[in-house]
Amino acid sequence: MHASIIVFGTELLSGRVRDSHVQYLSRELRLLGVEVREALVLPDDPVLGREELSRMIERGGVVVVCGGLGPTSDDHGRELLASCAGVPLVFREDVWQALVERYPHLSEVPSNRRQAYVPEGFEALPNPAGTAPGLWGRVGKTWVAALPGPPVELARVFGDEVAPRIRAISGRGSDNGERMYTTYLIPESALEDALAPWEGRLTWATQAQPGRVFLVLSGGDEETIRACVASLEERFLPVLVFEGEKDLFVLLKEALARRGLTVGFAESCTGGRIASSLTKVPGASEVFWGGVVVYSNEAKERLLGVRPETLRTFGAVSRQTVEEMVRGVFEHMPVDVAAAVSGIAGPSGGSPEKPVGTVCVGVGRRDGRSRTFRALLRGDRERIQHKSALLAGLLTYILVEEEDWLDRRELADYIENKLT
Amino acid sequence: MHASIIVFGTELLSGRVRDSHVQYLSRELRLLGVEVREALVLPDDPVLGREELSRMIERGGVVVVCGGLGPTSDDHGRELLASCAGVPLVFREDVWQALVERYPHLSEVPSNRRQAYVPEGFEALPNPAGTAPGLWGRVGKTWVAALPGPPVELARVFGDEVAPRIRAISGRGSDNGERMYTTYLIPESALEDALAPWEGRLTWATQAQPGRVFLVLSGGDEETIRACVASLEERFLPVLVFEGEKDLFVLLKEALARRGLTVGFAESCTGGRIASSLTKVPGASEVFWGGVVVYSNEAKERLLGVRPETLRTFGAVSRQTVEEMVRGVFEHMPVDVAAAVSGIAGPSGGSPEKPVGTVCVGVGRRDGRSRTFRALLRGDRERIQHKSALLAGLLTYILVEEEDWLDRRELADYIENKLT
Repeated sequence: MHASIIVFGTELLSGRVRDSHVQYLSRELRLLGVEVREALVLPDDPVLGREELSRMIERGGVVVVCGGLGPTSDDHGRELLASCAGVPLVFREDVWQALVERYPHLSEVPSNRRQAYVPEGFEALPNPAGTAPGLWGRVGKTWVAALPGPPVELARVFGDEVAPRIRAISGRGSDNGERMYTTYLIPESALEDALAPWEGRLTWATQAQPGRVFLVLSGGDEETIRACVASLEERFLPVLVFEGEKDLFVLLKEALARRGLTVGFAESCTGGRIASSLTKVPGASEVFWGGVVVYSNEAKERLLGVRPETLRTFGAVSRQTVEEMVRGVFEHMPVDVAAAVSGIAGPSGGSPEKPVGTVCVGVGRRDGRSRTFRALLRGDRERIQHKSALLAGLLTYILVEEEDWLDRRELADYIENKLT
Repeated sequence: MHASIIVFGTELLSGRVRDSHVQYLSRELRLLGVEVREALVLPDDPVLGREELSRMIERGGVVVVCGGLGPTSDDHGRELLASCAGVPLVFREDVWQALVERYPHLSEVPSNRRQAYVPEGFEALPNPAGTAPGLWGRVGKTWVAALPGPPVELARVFGDEVAPRIRAISGRGSDNGERMYTTYLIPESALEDALAPWEGRLTWATQAQPGRVFLVLSGGDEETIRACVASLEERFLPVLVFEGEKDLFVLLKEALARRGLTVGFAESCTGGRIASSLTKVPGASEVFWGGVVVYSNEAKERLLGVRPETLRTFGAVSRQTVEEMVRGVFEHMPVDVAAAVSGIAGPSGGSPEKPVGTVCVGVGRRDGRSRTFRALLRGDRERIQHKSALLAGLLTYILVEEEDWLDRRELADYIENKLT
């Protein structure tokens, strides 16, 4: 089955606001096994709107209309739908009563009654997040869903009401045989390379973000997918591949919380990124005690007790320094787990022995020994900082979840020689 | 004049990537006096592409095609254009030579030659940011521009090559007298409100990001623009409006460096975001000594010396606590300037007296007294953390650049009552 999306919003064509509906709906529809054939953004113009909506309805499949359901005179969604379907708009007393019960003040403004009009033969879909109900109905061979424009309302009405209806008409269960994976610190090109031998047995799509790639496998049976993932884990490392759409710092927070552990960070080149990534996760206070951003050498000495000789002999970017930074965390913070990072993010500060991108990471438990790693990351300052923070987060996660991996030769080898 | 935008990209309809071209081009076209009538996102499908592109070309005005100009077999842009224009594709030796001169390795892969094919009668537009040239030509009464898909390349080719051509055909001068401003912590709607009386004398476009709005004024003479900006500064505060496209933390780094000052941060709810925003700026080590992320109360006591009585009596989110945090920075770090933040980012942790979004910020100099502010910010956890970091950065900037503003009633009033 295929779908078309039509988004009404003059503001979206003014350069002021960026549309988010197309991305959200494309993803949700794809997970329902529905392919999006086109997405159109239009101003709140009823003439143009009617013309384009008719054209889309003629194409069949599902048409999702976003916006235009509010109470103002700019909101033409209901009228357009009724006109394209060739049916009258009907005032629905039940819809109006349900609205007024939830929002009594609505009855004070007559124009709010507009929101209780429904094209004849259409269903009104409850909107638990706002006032304008969604709409669902059939025009010829095409199913049409109309959703309120505010993103939170759109997502509620789509998820609660429209998705189940699409599942029912497409005859699919909730499972379309697609499996999603998240990989960290594997370059997209290396992943594509590793997937090439599976051509013909599976189809895949990747989406790369700095340091993270989402991978969707489909078109094969469960066993083929499992075999493919096993081959990726063998070629790279199982600890870099996660099932599902995962955020590393959510995983880290959950792993720490499950074990009742707290963590502290000592950050140099990442400048607070590790702490701020973890504190983006709601409830981070359960596991995050605090951290220090020891950007200068003096800060490393004064806030963590790193010895001046260490800095002098080995340099701020060295395994020795990050090892002392880890120790310093345990001396100054009553945490169970610590991670420390020092590196050269550039653009200046590199040298032949330690070029820009050189990063050292240390992780440890209070009651155990710490391990240190050195990597050479590519990219600009932003990328190097970002990937350094991911590397530290990932190593902390491995320490908490699968500590024995930290001593495996493959991991050190990957970080030191293959990571970029 | 009006324009239509057509964006090719299967990935944009997969839910993985959000389109940014429609917003960018809508804004740029609007500043050229061109109204965008529709924006269509399509998969890389030549059949559908041809049908839709023909339809748009029939409508007249300007059609901007994004993407599909690369060297791979998925890139149908050139063929579509030639087919809709009814002309052959011609290999342009000059375009190829110019490409190979800049990127000698291109000649190794035959498919790269595709990028030197141009529909007969079209201009090839230089692309200083990448390999695929843009295209410009006329089909019937319609002007068509084709731009490479990567955002940086698209912006360069549009700005350098397409915008002047649109100005020429729309009969507008080349200096459009456009002035750009960056405002911090002014809601876009308040800005629009304040601009409304200037309707008819000036045109404007805004682009909002969380906590920051870019404002472009044009269509008026220098004096009118100055008067308009003065009115904004009067309505809001001059310290919130910057000329040009500015990044707050670049401004802060430069202001500190100019005066040879160093800064340290004590962050609670921002979790390292202030430090990480400043350390994104190359050369931050000139001015940034270090900081602490004192997420737990115990961290506030142990890393900064905040008194347990203060935390007990006034709470972690209080002016008293952030004042002691500022003092703690000076006790533990040899910096000239300090900023401290404590707040409730949510989703939990709010109370009737201190709802989610309550944030206290303190700033001070080692040799001066500190000032504290309290604000109530709206939004989800991410927004509150982000705006808190901006507020702390802005107040630090004001402390360094225009310290007397910190004691003005207007500033405290704005932060406490108008900031959201």
